[in-house]
Amino acid sequence: MRMSNVAVIGVGMAPVKSSSGKSLTELFVQAAKEAIEDSGVSKIDAMYVGNMMSGFLQNQEHLGSLMASGLGREGIPAYKVEAACASGGVAMNAGVKAVLSGLDRIVLVGGVEKMSDNSTPKVTAGLMMAEDRLKVATTGVTFVGLNALIAREYIRKYNVHHEEIAQFPVLCHGNAMDNPKAQFHKKITIDDALQSPLVADPLRLFDCSAMGDGAAALVLAPVEEATKLTDTPIEVAASAVATDALSLYQRKELTVFEGSRRAVDEAFRRSKLKPSDVDVVEIHDAFSVLGIMALEDLGFADKGSGAKLLRDGQCERDGKLPVNAFGGLKARGHPVGATGVYQLAELTLQLSNRAEKCQVPNATVGLSQNVGGIGSTVAVHILRRA
Amino acid sequence: MRMSNVAVIGVGMAPVKSSSGKSLTELFVQAAKEAIEDSGVSKIDAMYVGNMMSGFLQNQEHLGSLMASGLGREGIPAYKVEAACASGGVAMNAGVKAVLSGLDRIVLVGGVEKMSDNSTPKVTAGLMMAEDRLKVATTGVTFVGLNALIAREYIRKYNVHHEEIAQFPVLCHGNAMDNPKAQFHKKITIDDALQSPLVADPLRLFDCSAMGDGAAALVLAPVEEATKLTDTPIEVAASAVATDALSLYQRKELTVFEGSRRAVDEAFRRSKLKPSDVDVVEIHDAFSVLGIMALEDLGFADKGSGAKLLRDGQCERDGKLPVNAFGGLKARGHPVGATGVYQLAELTLQLSNRAEKCQVPNATVGLSQNVGGIGSTVAVHILRRA
Repeated sequence: MRMSNVAVIGVGMAPVKSSSGKSLTELFVQAAKEAIEDSGVSKIDAMYVGNMMSGFLQNQEHLGSLMASGLGREGIPAYKVEAACASGGVAMNAGVKAVLSGLDRIVLVGGVEKMSDNSTPKVTAGLMMAEDRLKVATTGVTFVGLNALIAREYIRKYNVHHEEIAQFPVLCHGNAMDNPKAQFHKKITIDDALQSPLVADPLRLFDCSAMGDGAAALVLAPVEEATKLTDTPIEVAASAVATDALSLYQRKELTVFEGSRRAVDEAFRRSKLKPSDVDVVEIHDAFSVLGIMALEDLGFADKGSGAKLLRDGQCERDGKLPVNAFGGLKARGHPVGATGVYQLAELTLQLSNRAEKCQVPNATVGLSQNVGGIGSTVAVHILRRA
Repeated sequence: MRMSNVAVIGVGMAPVKSSSGKSLTELFVQAAKEAIEDSGVSKIDAMYVGNMMSGFLQNQEHLGSLMASGLGREGIPAYKVEAACASGGVAMNAGVKAVLSGLDRIVLVGGVEKMSDNSTPKVTAGLMMAEDRLKVATTGVTFVGLNALIAREYIRKYNVHHEEIAQFPVLCHGNAMDNPKAQFHKKITIDDALQSPLVADPLRLFDCSAMGDGAAALVLAPVEEATKLTDTPIEVAASAVATDALSLYQRKELTVFEGSRRAVDEAFRRSKLKPSDVDVVEIHDAFSVLGIMALEDLGFADKGSGAKLLRDGQCERDGKLPVNAFGGLKARGHPVGATGVYQLAELTLQLSNRAEKCQVPNATVGLSQNVGGIGSTVAVHILRRA
């Protein structure tokens, strides 16, 4: 079966906020209603909800039925899909498969996370659920700490200076200035980043994405339906998920995410596209160094030279390879289980020329990379203007 | 697309135990390896893991990558799927859709839950994550308490005596005597059930399924592949999921699960089968009264008369409609996120004449019902000897 027969026909995004004052259900319903309204459909056949931590942080599971009820659509098939910070991306994968299966026609894919009603230590413990509890989390290392190991090794191995890596958050914070739904509207400089408080050496505050509440949603339909419903159906050219050994200690190499390579290879193979066909990219920059590494692992730069793309201005909106044009995880925000869906909603707006001040000129192909754990799950999607 | 082109080609089940002494990963890997060996395949294209409470009980999420790593199959697409106690059933739904989508060929569907390393109050709180945290759980009512409301109303409305309802656990405990993987090997009588300690009036100890550890797994393949790999491919004739309003207070009627009705209607419609075609049933008897209600909601008995089927001996293995021939939730056990997969593994053994002492004679069509929350999500599957 060809991958080319699913399209995105509607998108919705709640603004990402450090503290939304809304419940999980309120957040999800806000994004889902916006997506349904945007699509113009009335009937939803099935729903997939991406979320990582609702059990741990809200004592709440069963988000499928909860959200279907919250939307006033009780009855529809609905369930939760989880792969740590890639929960949104894998929810999309489940939704795409549902449409391709022929069992569901109009599918809502949503992601939601609420991090604000818990203490930072509790959320820090929650994020470590992405790693092996018995063999790694019990050592006391935090998720930032593990990423600091990667940053340290990346800097050593490729002799890259921290200020080159810090270009990534600077780019994201700049782009988010134009995104009204971004968590942060604050331009920063390289110096701001390098002088921000140390979190886990060498990672500083501005190297790290923040805690936030958010929800995003998409409506999917078969392409032949989509062309009847909208003038700008955005085709899902590929939906690929790959894993890697869960834990860093199991890897041969710290500075390459094999999961990214596997997923992107699969996505390009399925879509018959190549890196040079991509006009705009959404990258999972949970930490600055991961943004740089992703440029390499996805095939846009050689290993060790990802930062050069930024230095040359190529990743700006008017550059050769615009990256995180809405602000990325660093500045749009990273409400964990929703992030992958935000990326896809933003790409859809780009490709249908509805990105307003965040618009990249003449974008027809967009790629998103959503990472769970320390590269342990990677979802790559390629969207294309039909 | 026809539903008839997915088959089960291998099954595996860890024994259900009150305390397994095994980790989540060890449990899952035991069942998954058994299923893969049973199927005879070497390559798995994707994996779906059903689980409800690992975040809350084990501080562990990201079971897709964790289990792929545990199986020595890092790299494959893998993620967790959750719908409370129906997590196993919806994992199967995701797996079936993956094969039908054409994106995955050989798919492993597994379910796992470990309840033994936490206190009963903690697990009781965990199970309430299936209900609305903000509007229901905060009242202090337990999951057993909510089911007791249903039992009380069922007894009142249909004037059914408790001893009629207690036939269900008696049947299950009898059947489990022949299942070496069952949690309980203890025959009970109606009097044992009626005189057991009160848990939540009118539900007594033997009306309630118990806490347990377990994991089960299935290997799926397209039917055309399956016929090359095994002499007894078991076809998935239907995979249907439906929700209902999440909470009891939102329902018009307590003694009917509309989710069951919706899912079974869809399953019969897709498979072009009817209740009288079904030779063996696996029912979600988390509580005795739910077993009786399921017989009615699934179309095997009129409302209020489910217990009559048991009184007439129809639900015994040699009866007209054998039910829970391996012991059901009550006696095989109910390791929450694995239960729906156990049901399907057991049906597969029945339909391929491999159920040994639990074998039902001449079974060609089997139906399973897996319930999440208080009927808030229901997964119904119909399997058929190809």
